[in-house]
Amino acid sequence: MDTVSVREKIATFQAAYIRCIDSNQLEDWPDFFMPQCQYTVTTADNYRDGLPAGLIWANNRAMLQDRISALRHANIYERHSYRHIVGLPFVKSDQLGSVSAETPFMVARIMHDGVTDLFCTGVYYDDYDITGDVLHLKSRIVVCDSSRIDTLLAVPL
Amino acid sequence: MDTVSVREKIATFQAAYIRCIDSNQLEDWPDFFMPQCQYTVTTADNYRDGLPAGLIWANNRAMLQDRISALRHANIYERHSYRHIVGLPFVKSDQLGSVSAETPFMVARIMHDGVTDLFCTGVYYDDYDITGDVLHLKSRIVVCDSSRIDTLLAVPL
Amino acid sequence: MDTVSVREKIATFQAAYIRCIDSNQLEDWPDFFMPQCQYTVTTADNYRDGLPAGLIWANNRAMLQDRISALRHANIYERHSYRHIVGLPFVKSDQLGSVSAETPFMVARIMHDGVTDLFCTGVYYDDYDITGDVLHLKSRIVVCDSSRIDTLLAVPL
Repeated sequence: MDTVSVREKIATFQAAYIRCIDSNQLEDWPDFFMPQCQYTVTTADNYRDGLPAGLIWANNRAMLQDRISALRHANIYERHSYRHIVGLPFVKSDQLGSVSAETPFMVARIMHDGVTDLFCTGVYYDDYDITGDVLHLKSRIVVCDSSRIDTLLAVPL
Repeated sequence: MDTVSVREKIATFQAAYIRCIDSNQLEDWPDFFMPQCQYTVTTADNYRDGLPAGLIWANNRAMLQDRISALRHANIYERHSYRHIVGLPFVKSDQLGSVSAETPFMVARIMHDGVTDLFCTGVYYDDYDITGDVLHLKSRIVVCDSSRIDTLLAVPL
Repeated sequence: MDTVSVREKIATFQAAYIRCIDSNQLEDWPDFFMPQCQYTVTTADNYRDGLPAGLIWANNRAMLQDRISALRHANIYERHSYRHIVGLPFVKSDQLGSVSAETPFMVARIMHDGVTDLFCTGVYYDDYDITGDVLHLKSRIVVCDSSRIDTLLAVPL
């Protein structure tokens, strides 16, 4: 399993991941993770200082499913839409059945009135389980560059 | 023809497509399409509601060529420039000689005075004809996230 | 050496290059270049008019190292952070051991108070030395779309 082919697999995974979110198929989002997994959204400042508390924290898939359920029930108002663009993945280490990678991203937010702004930028720090061509996240730490992430942050990153 | 290699071909195609536009070689743009093709630019709202009318609509390559001619004659004023960034393509289906894919994009607009803003985000919904390593668009539906796309929209998306 | 595989190598290179910058490992940045190399940052207007003078100009790796040293000593204030997103590389020519490519990019700037804006867009015009799987830049001309690039531009592009 050479680096190039793993990079391609991760690129394919990332494309599917953000498509799931931006096309509002949120119920499928937890399936990108292992049943036992770490999912954290934090800021660059907190991450650099080693602070564990993030804006979002989950350590299994069921918590991710709960989050989507809550989101669906809360969103009685018309919501914004988001557009994720992921950059090219950087493969850090690649050992039998396990890969670490970093992938930068930008997210635009499109308000209901059509106004578009740059909502968020950052990096995905990922550990993947790879079985054949199938990837699942063992851990995703979403490190947002800005400390001013909207605390009403609803859609997954 | 496996999915990974098709994804790579589409990535190569997308890179060439946006380079053609952003480097202002617009006369080459129609050649990315089949002679009989569908090209539509629409909004996410219209697309979701199944409304066929878009901001731009063409069903053959000659219409795309006409559009570029009109654009060249109309642009007596100094125009803005644009910068497209496409994300990683997601291959939906891959059958003999025919592929469907979705690719997200962001477009920045750079005004003549240098001011840069996020002009547009969205997704390319594409059907490709693949002959060997050569891809042509049978259909491209450009779905813009915002309903407030500038109606003076000139440059192709 | 086919185009697809070269494109993949360049994508891998670009991912590593921007990761080096955005993770503030600037001392490693000159190693992406050959000892004798051209590095220029300029504007689209200047580039189109054939003007050699850019915002930044260097013709060997030692000058790049000097630039980083200067940057480290100057930055006694808390600096902004940046987030690069590179698009899909377009391979222009591919000859034995030497490749030309164009890769578009966007850079977001995150101010210390968390405000995020679109700082810069443009294209990398690159010539690579390829030895096996190892790439080094023989020449990188960074052409920024806007003429209003911040003259305090500090971090490499």
